[in-house]
Amino acid sequence: MAQTPKDIAIIGSGLVGSLLGIYLKRYGHNITIFDRRPDIRTIQFSGRSINLAMSNRGWKALKEVGIDVPIKEIAIPLSRRAMHVNGTPMYFQDYGKDGEAIWSISRGLLNRRMINLAEDAGVTFRFNEKVWDIDLPQAKIFTGETEKSEWKAYQYDLVFGCDGAFSRIRHKMQRRSRFDYSQDFIDVGYKELTIPPNEDGSHKLDKHSFHIWPRGKFMLIAMPNIDGSFTCTLFMPFEGDVSFEKITTKEAAESFFKTYFPNVSQVIENLINDFFKNPTSAMVTMKCYPWTYWDKVALVGDSAHAIVPFYGQGMNAGFEDIYVLDKLIQQYGDDWEHIFTTYQKQRKPNADAIAELSYRNFMEMSSKTADPRFLLQKKIEKKFAAKYPDKWTPVYSRVTFSDNPYADALAIGDQQEAMMQKVMEMPNIEAIWDTPEVEQKMLELLSKS
Amino acid sequence: MAQTPKDIAIIGSGLVGSLLGIYLKRYGHNITIFDRRPDIRTIQFSGRSINLAMSNRGWKALKEVGIDVPIKEIAIPLSRRAMHVNGTPMYFQDYGKDGEAIWSISRGLLNRRMINLAEDAGVTFRFNEKVWDIDLPQAKIFTGETEKSEWKAYQYDLVFGCDGAFSRIRHKMQRRSRFDYSQDFIDVGYKELTIPPNEDGSHKLDKHSFHIWPRGKFMLIAMPNIDGSFTCTLFMPFEGDVSFEKITTKEAAESFFKTYFPNVSQVIENLINDFFKNPTSAMVTMKCYPWTYWDKVALVGDSAHAIVPFYGQGMNAGFEDIYVLDKLIQQYGDDWEHIFTTYQKQRKPNADAIAELSYRNFMEMSSKTADPRFLLQKKIEKKFAAKYPDKWTPVYSRVTFSDNPYADALAIGDQQEAMMQKVMEMPNIEAIWDTPEVEQKMLELLSKS
Repeated sequence: MAQTPKDIAIIGSGLVGSLLGIYLKRYGHNITIFDRRPDIRTIQFSGRSINLAMSNRGWKALKEVGIDVPIKEIAIPLSRRAMHVNGTPMYFQDYGKDGEAIWSISRGLLNRRMINLAEDAGVTFRFNEKVWDIDLPQAKIFTGETEKSEWKAYQYDLVFGCDGAFSRIRHKMQRRSRFDYSQDFIDVGYKELTIPPNEDGSHKLDKHSFHIWPRGKFMLIAMPNIDGSFTCTLFMPFEGDVSFEKITTKEAAESFFKTYFPNVSQVIENLINDFFKNPTSAMVTMKCYPWTYWDKVALVGDSAHAIVPFYGQGMNAGFEDIYVLDKLIQQYGDDWEHIFTTYQKQRKPNADAIAELSYRNFMEMSSKTADPRFLLQKKIEKKFAAKYPDKWTPVYSRVTFSDNPYADALAIGDQQEAMMQKVMEMPNIEAIWDTPEVEQKMLELLSKS
Repeated sequence: MAQTPKDIAIIGSGLVGSLLGIYLKRYGHNITIFDRRPDIRTIQFSGRSINLAMSNRGWKALKEVGIDVPIKEIAIPLSRRAMHVNGTPMYFQDYGKDGEAIWSISRGLLNRRMINLAEDAGVTFRFNEKVWDIDLPQAKIFTGETEKSEWKAYQYDLVFGCDGAFSRIRHKMQRRSRFDYSQDFIDVGYKELTIPPNEDGSHKLDKHSFHIWPRGKFMLIAMPNIDGSFTCTLFMPFEGDVSFEKITTKEAAESFFKTYFPNVSQVIENLINDFFKNPTSAMVTMKCYPWTYWDKVALVGDSAHAIVPFYGQGMNAGFEDIYVLDKLIQQYGDDWEHIFTTYQKQRKPNADAIAELSYRNFMEMSSKTADPRFLLQKKIEKKFAAKYPDKWTPVYSRVTFSDNPYADALAIGDQQEAMMQKVMEMPNIEAIWDTPEVEQKMLELLSKS
């Protein structure tokens, strides 16, 4: 259906805001994107980013507006995990079948390119302009130097809040009655570290792998950049035995890296410098509802559903919001109230599902990777999935390499888990796991489900 | 331990704020209570209150500072439920043993008296002065006409946020990293209605009963006031078949009350007038953590843990906060950081437990009261508890007539429920529920637990 051009404000010039601008511009709307921060193209990156893992849902949303090709230029495909288990030589785990891959991209680089693409499409940006308040029924926004300073008012037809987990737009919606909201922080923080390139510009580690150093309660990951460097992320409890609060001196940091990550100690100077230079960031699961206000205001991306990063789906979920919203725009034309209502109803269960899956991945990594029964279960599943790919798709693949709803992935994963509980209850499972008996049991259980 | 007198601000002149003022004044502190509203002693009540049910925990906290007697003057003991089931003559259910009772008090009347008592104790009140912001590390508060107007700053040693479910003090804490927070509204709203006294000033219904008209998805309750009136509360879904949104005309309201509440139709004019005069209010469960900031700021009562009203424990839980805090003050003297840290650690699991219990009571009332199996289970429990009072204390009694921790009541209730699930699985339980076989089974299960 056709759309009447509207004056639209998008709050937030991040990945979701920029992509939404590109999508909406196609219908002839006037789009202005506000951001409280300066233009990311003109400043240094923050030192608090985790590299992005673009997967199926992200690419699909980019392809829809024809910008997947320029983005692939700054992305590196990772087809496997490289596991750095202490005391064991490094080994690989393929992600999926037939070279399925996730793509490593620097958040800063991607954001710069997305803003360029949005500008090319005709979107206007207003940087360094903080939105402090919104009149929801009027779609009027107020900007200014400080919360108490004189404010400037802008009248729009529609406002989109793409201003992240701590959204100011949502903040206003939150003060209305009957607005459900939750924010839950985990006890683990993260810190960005860098492994620089070799002198010839090549990568110091295998560049087509997602590198993981699992250490139980803490872990290091590394994802490659196109400049030969790796962006590493150290996940570790804020407090406790091995924790951010315990590492306060260069000596403590050096000993920490040498003890737990000996195979990266060649770049230990870099790691230590970054450790003290970069901030320690917190991670939150944020849920809310409703996501929209009448036919005037909608939240998209992290402002509607922020998740912990352990599934690599935050950006992908935000991009999928836009893809879904766009299909509804095509279907319902100028009926923005209907578009918004349907959008939030469709997306909310999927946002809740990926939040749950991401949180479970965190729990799994921090408490189950040392549990032999859990590892045995994973081994049985893996063997079965390899032999019967049509009967058993791992949840990870459903989430990462398909665009089936997240809610379905969660539900099917729960069914698989219930099945596996029965398998693990088989007498002497530790000894017989590799036998036809177990395989037969799984086929039986599957046929009943 | 002795305490050094401090300058203390309490935000909120409600029940919890007033009582906290009385408690703290005993240590010689200078206490100022701020409230954005006018002095409740000078204005009409809001028309949005549910009568309070003071029970064991509330009385204990009042008694500690010797004000239980003047409060009992405005309270009426209710020793039983009066059940108004449609198509059945009204019948009674005793609350507990030996005349255990909850006490009905008008919120407005109680608040007025508490403020008087606080003033008598030497507490200063500043009404009509809204706190907009707080500097947490400095314990400095800012008041003013509007959010954008010139603000006045006050410096204190300690600040207590007793400003309710939508606390401004918590609002500021909430914007800090690693602050967990959730607000969940239920789909049911409530409205205050009044049944006036008879012409001779007596009550129109039995005055020592908590009156309930259960109707499945909605329900009416009535609690007596000392002036001969009853404060009624109509709980009903906001939307749906029988809902607040459906009743928009006098005719619809009249038909609603006549159909569902025939035995109060003598006062139908009053009910209809109140229905359209009084607002429909929402109900929320609010949880957060931490509750305190260093040795400077603490949340007490609804600002720390707002619950739905279906257990009648909101005020009781807030008063118990104060009682617990006071014991820690006596123990730790001037070490406010330790007092606050211990307070929040002790109280948080109990606040979560009463939130859960209150929410379950809502679910029970709205969806289970029509379930014959549920009613049968309750019948079995009741019979057993009457015969073996030492072996089976109902959760309701633990919550209402004891001061054992809420968390224990919840845990024991869960054990009882698990037991009852096994009892309900006994073959042909509908026929044999009243037999020694069932009784024997329960004794057995209890001896194993």
